[in-house]
Amino acid sequence: MANNPEITILLDFYGEMLTQKQRDMIDFYYNDDLSLSEIAENEGITRQGVHDSIKRAEQQMYEMEERLHLCEKFRRTREGLETIRKCVEDISKVNEQSGFSFEITRSCRIINEKIEELLD
Amino acid sequence: MANNPEITILLDFYGEMLTQKQRDMIDFYYNDDLSLSEIAENEGITRQGVHDSIKRAEQQMYEMEERLHLCEKFRRTREGLETIRKCVEDISKVNEQSGFSFEITRSCRIINEKIEELLD
Repeated sequence: MANNPEITILLDFYGEMLTQKQRDMIDFYYNDDLSLSEIAENEGITRQGVHDSIKRAEQQMYEMEERLHLCEKFRRTREGLETIRKCVEDISKVNEQSGFSFEITRSCRIINEKIEELLD
Repeated sequence: MANNPEITILLDFYGEMLTQKQRDMIDFYYNDDLSLSEIAENEGITRQGVHDSIKRAEQQMYEMEERLHLCEKFRRTREGLETIRKCVEDISKVNEQSGFSFEITRSCRIINEKIEELLD
């Protein structure tokens, strides 16, 4: 279950809505790859307690995604920017092969910088 | 206070996290421009009750923005896409003036369509 990419993305968006405790446990479990028993020992609670706490946090994040659709919106933006990047590559290629305009080269560079910035 | 653009944007992002009752009252107040007293009468609660409920909903949305920064992220994306759009305009202009490549025209069109889609 560790390194679940879906949970990692949810955490990116909604992690700040969880309590510090919840974030810690999820972090131990998914990022540090500790077992439920190991986390339980560290935290001084039962294995079941850790399990329930992580499940509840996950549930909260899935519910937020169902309401706000942020991960989904982010995925669409990312894909759109990748399409734009490919088009800019095509423009650069044609520009280099035929004619070569400095203004087009410059505009392509600015677009690529903006895309990097937005994907950051 | 009605038609507060900041609240309108917050509602776009976080409205789904409020209760139906909260959404209704905020809607009556900001979008339908009803007074607190009018809403109170409609809802069968006190004017103070309506006031507190709206304030609490606003507070919740401001807190979510402080944690998740979605409105801020959205504003940055919007601005970045506007910059990209301007660059594409420049490319189109140069392309039309000198040389004229069908591939560049086509790529500019695809980028513009993507931008529209992402800003939608």
